[in-house]
Amino acid sequence: MRAAVMFGAGDVQVKEVPDARIDRPTDAVVRVTHAAICGSDLWRYGKMPPNPDGVRLGHEFIGVVEETGAEVTSVRRGDVVLAPFKWSDGRCEFCRDGLPNSCLNGGFWGGELDGGQGEAVRVPQADGTLLPLPMEPDDPRVPAVLALSDVLCTGHHAARAAQVGPGRTVAVVGDGAVGLCGVLAASRLGAERIIVLGRHTARTDLARRFGAVEVVPERGTEAVERVKELTGGHGAHAVLECVGTGAALRDALDMARPGGAVGYVGVPQDGDGVDARRFYRRNVTLAGGVAPARAYAPELLPDVLSGRLDASAIFDRTVGLDGVPDGYKAMAEREALKVLIRP
Amino acid sequence: MRAAVMFGAGDVQVKEVPDARIDRPTDAVVRVTHAAICGSDLWRYGKMPPNPDGVRLGHEFIGVVEETGAEVTSVRRGDVVLAPFKWSDGRCEFCRDGLPNSCLNGGFWGGELDGGQGEAVRVPQADGTLLPLPMEPDDPRVPAVLALSDVLCTGHHAARAAQVGPGRTVAVVGDGAVGLCGVLAASRLGAERIIVLGRHTARTDLARRFGAVEVVPERGTEAVERVKELTGGHGAHAVLECVGTGAALRDALDMARPGGAVGYVGVPQDGDGVDARRFYRRNVTLAGGVAPARAYAPELLPDVLSGRLDASAIFDRTVGLDGVPDGYKAMAEREALKVLIRP
Repeated sequence: MRAAVMFGAGDVQVKEVPDARIDRPTDAVVRVTHAAICGSDLWRYGKMPPNPDGVRLGHEFIGVVEETGAEVTSVRRGDVVLAPFKWSDGRCEFCRDGLPNSCLNGGFWGGELDGGQGEAVRVPQADGTLLPLPMEPDDPRVPAVLALSDVLCTGHHAARAAQVGPGRTVAVVGDGAVGLCGVLAASRLGAERIIVLGRHTARTDLARRFGAVEVVPERGTEAVERVKELTGGHGAHAVLECVGTGAALRDALDMARPGGAVGYVGVPQDGDGVDARRFYRRNVTLAGGVAPARAYAPELLPDVLSGRLDASAIFDRTVGLDGVPDGYKAMAEREALKVLIRP
Repeated sequence: MRAAVMFGAGDVQVKEVPDARIDRPTDAVVRVTHAAICGSDLWRYGKMPPNPDGVRLGHEFIGVVEETGAEVTSVRRGDVVLAPFKWSDGRCEFCRDGLPNSCLNGGFWGGELDGGQGEAVRVPQADGTLLPLPMEPDDPRVPAVLALSDVLCTGHHAARAAQVGPGRTVAVVGDGAVGLCGVLAASRLGAERIIVLGRHTARTDLARRFGAVEVVPERGTEAVERVKELTGGHGAHAVLECVGTGAALRDALDMARPGGAVGYVGVPQDGDGVDARRFYRRNVTLAGGVAPARAYAPELLPDVLSGRLDASAIFDRTVGLDGVPDGYKAMAEREALKVLIRP
């Protein structure tokens, strides 16, 4: 079969790879119908050292179950399924606690496993990992559902961690796909007022469509001051950090109101530390991390299917498998916000 | 009147200072009957640059109201009152939200104000600040109540921020007065199992009396490993950071279980930053800060009066006003855990 492989920074190629096949009785093989390129893939695209073996790519996909191992009971051949960005057994103590991303028997896609940016994927722990979908692969709502594999659950996690709710003013740091999903999630959770920090008009326009009422293009202390001005001098109740740099996290902490909370979901990139003196006096809570997508997806799916939670507009380009290298390039050059792949 | 004044690191003197008197109609004057020296006073005692004007000291006290300003309605002459470590108006939006330590019209004791380590104190915003107590100054429960002015509320804040509750394993980093109060607060909140990190036997013995069942004398990565060993390899659900150094905060974050929380209440001292990569993958929440003592004190007072929440054993030395300089020395040299002052 064919799949996207990254051999180093800026070097993605579509290659012939071993066919996905059942290896353990808890596996399933899923034929991918829809996948995506993630902003987090771009970090690696920007700095991966050359590796002649290459690494497989893609952790967001929807597809059709082609085969199942002997112990798989919750999905069967022909089912349309969503895979979240980590696989998990659904049974360990962390899965039972609603934290499948910390599953004791789970992991990320890629590495020695298949990735979603390919024709098919061997899915470990299929019973715990795959979410059956009540739809056909050609349903027009599939892109909206695909967002649940990562970015929409991640935006929702930021909003939940930041304690978004009615009466709360929300600032979203970052206008990438996760930030935009954070706006959408905050809106769904009843935020009183949403401020988005970003400077790419196409993206901030989408943020407005998703529920933001103010756009702050500044960064750093200027952005913090602007958010304070917009919030009676005190800062936002809830701040969603959707970038992943130390600078963005510091801004997020600084613009939180005393007693407020920062939901951090941007994958930390630079090891740039945060000094607790920054938020100690203001009792700011810092919560978040890797989103428990497999736990959130079933909770959010009904609203996605009903159209109430529709992030599909983040996909502004669609490519076939051969178009994946160009898709990376377009996202890295900010010509595309998020690329949908139809292998 | 006389009060303790600090003129630089290691230099505390009892001096004649201007009498406390009503300055604004919202003031009260309180004659101090009981005060304390705080671990946070020791940071300044260790590093304050020489200052010939000196600074007034003490932010934990109980006393008798001597006089009230024209607008004060909630206390009157003769009332026995508790003052928390910050004063607050009780009416602003933050006070109403349960965060009196962020009061828009409040502040810390000392500076241009009186401190509790003296004969009397002008109390600004007396209606918001002072908590009337149903007891006489010679009631034997006064030391237990005095702990509510800071350390017991701070320990409770750490426990609340760390989401302590039934079924939760708790690690308390630090065996100072706040750490010990954290143990007591966690025990009251129903913690299943409390581990205290400390190496001073007198203190860890007290921690056991307050509810700890395990003592870990190690520090750094060894302490983290030990706590993990004691918790099935995963770490504690709730970690209370009661020290205030970057190293202690890192240990606290590292020993939290995935999905767990760190309640940080140690006043951050060294500006030593924490890298978000440390806790991102494990979804560790970091919450806490300056405790809202004026909000917690009325909630905890009934349990203190009933003897269910008795931190009085943290006071292991009592001095008069003239003994305050020696009290600082004893605490700095770890000969005393916490000094009670009877001016």
